[in-house]
Amino acid sequence: MVVYNVPFTTYAQTVRYRTTGAWRAARHGAVASLVRSVGPRGARTPHTGAVNYTETDSRIPAAAITVEDAELLQRMQDRGTPGWVHLEMNARLLPDAESANVVGEILGWERPEEVVVVGGHIDSWDVGTGSTDDGGGCIVTWEALRIINQLGLRPRRTLRVVLWTNEENGLRGATAYRDRYDKQLADHIMMLESDSGVSRPRGFLFTGNPRGRETVGAIASLLRGIDAHRIGPNGGGADIGPSVRAANIPSMSLDVDSSNYFTIHHTPADTMDKIDPTEVAQNVAAIAVMAYVVADLPDRLGR
Amino acid sequence: MVVYNVPFTTYAQTVRYRTTGAWRAARHGAVASLVRSVGPRGARTPHTGAVNYTETDSRIPAAAITVEDAELLQRMQDRGTPGWVHLEMNARLLPDAESANVVGEILGWERPEEVVVVGGHIDSWDVGTGSTDDGGGCIVTWEALRIINQLGLRPRRTLRVVLWTNEENGLRGATAYRDRYDKQLADHIMMLESDSGVSRPRGFLFTGNPRGRETVGAIASLLRGIDAHRIGPNGGGADIGPSVRAANIPSMSLDVDSSNYFTIHHTPADTMDKIDPTEVAQNVAAIAVMAYVVADLPDRLGR
Repeated sequence: MVVYNVPFTTYAQTVRYRTTGAWRAARHGAVASLVRSVGPRGARTPHTGAVNYTETDSRIPAAAITVEDAELLQRMQDRGTPGWVHLEMNARLLPDAESANVVGEILGWERPEEVVVVGGHIDSWDVGTGSTDDGGGCIVTWEALRIINQLGLRPRRTLRVVLWTNEENGLRGATAYRDRYDKQLADHIMMLESDSGVSRPRGFLFTGNPRGRETVGAIASLLRGIDAHRIGPNGGGADIGPSVRAANIPSMSLDVDSSNYFTIHHTPADTMDKIDPTEVAQNVAAIAVMAYVVADLPDRLGR
Repeated sequence: MVVYNVPFTTYAQTVRYRTTGAWRAARHGAVASLVRSVGPRGARTPHTGAVNYTETDSRIPAAAITVEDAELLQRMQDRGTPGWVHLEMNARLLPDAESANVVGEILGWERPEEVVVVGGHIDSWDVGTGSTDDGGGCIVTWEALRIINQLGLRPRRTLRVVLWTNEENGLRGATAYRDRYDKQLADHIMMLESDSGVSRPRGFLFTGNPRGRETVGAIASLLRGIDAHRIGPNGGGADIGPSVRAANIPSMSLDVDSSNYFTIHHTPADTMDKIDPTEVAQNVAAIAVMAYVVADLPDRLGR
């Protein structure tokens, strides 16, 4: 049995021990693979998350253990104490079932074929209720459209909210979106995904050309009053990724204080009490302002 | 079934819902009592801890639930959703078994009958390993004596380390100590307990008269080099309490940064990884200096 005891640095760096650890261990003859929960800390809280297998290697059992238990096994190994782990799992891979993206729109009055997309993903890991990953992201993006609608505002271009399905284990909602809207992607002006929690916003992360960055910077200055006006690099999200890459669409995410995000996400602690209504309202305001103005610009956002 | 959903403020304020909630609920006809875990937060981590019953009221089942679950039940009640809780418990109260305080001494060369006591408690809640509550306190106090001994130092008075038993559910070690040393308590110069975690020390908490406070303040100034020289009010500890009260003994505890203490204590997360060796060493140094100098003073510490 292989145990990966890798301290959390960034999610991108650490998650690969969970996603690829099983087949790598299998390749060396392991009968099972355990990974230290991918998060900065916990209170004996195990994390779940996707595991990938290659076509050719054996599919061996793989599970996450708590940070505390990984450290215990490490200490035992360091001092040469033999350890036995009795592994009982009842996880099963069920056959695929149909699920769907949820889509809503405010049609643009002038150029309805041009689209600004905002959204989050509607699936979550079942150990918690998925409040942070990504119930909050769903709420703040649909609320942005609801508020624009309630205010009787209608921008030049179409505003679309998409709640993607199957982000967590396959991105099939994301690829289905890309394929279904294949011909419309050239008219996707901007895509924004909220999937880093809905804590206090500081501004936006943006990927696009310098002229586009200048424009969204000017729009973000409208949010100086709630201190959410900074534009940082590397906007995006897993679900908008396939579409963004297919058509080089400017992409964006809210830059929030996500220091607690990876403590909560994919754990039984991803529950409603982690959501702060005031912070949610700030997220909604920031997304509503950004999405509306981008959709209502006289000229398209630069690509 | 009564659910106490009381947000954590201080331990003293919040713990009484756990210790007295069951009989108070029983008095109103409740069949069981649930209490929100007594701690500032958690990651779906239930806390355990003592529950008291009166002689006359019914002993109804009592359990702690996680902060998250308490908040869920609160939200359900606030919106009028009926809730059913299915309670299964296998906790049992076993017959008393013999246990013992663990005592070690460095005999004073001049006045061996006068004693300075340091210590922690050796019992813990079984959900974790009791590393923080109170394994750390045991280690830093016995290490203080071990180091003094290793340095070949022998103070005027006796230094005694006591690892008390049964702090968590009855203080029988504490009362047995008081009763056994009944006649010697008048010659107890000072008692120090470490039971607030062994994180970075800032100084000492002290209960005693102004002259004693002045003396320990002067001793603490020796610890300026590790920034542990401040003297605050309200020194003490559960185990030294009965002896301190019986003979009005000056009492002390290390003042440590205990902001995480109540997140960890009495939970499955009270494990070795929470202990920092450098901070432990600072605790040991501070206790060793304070205990040795108090035991070696030409005059007794003022009472």
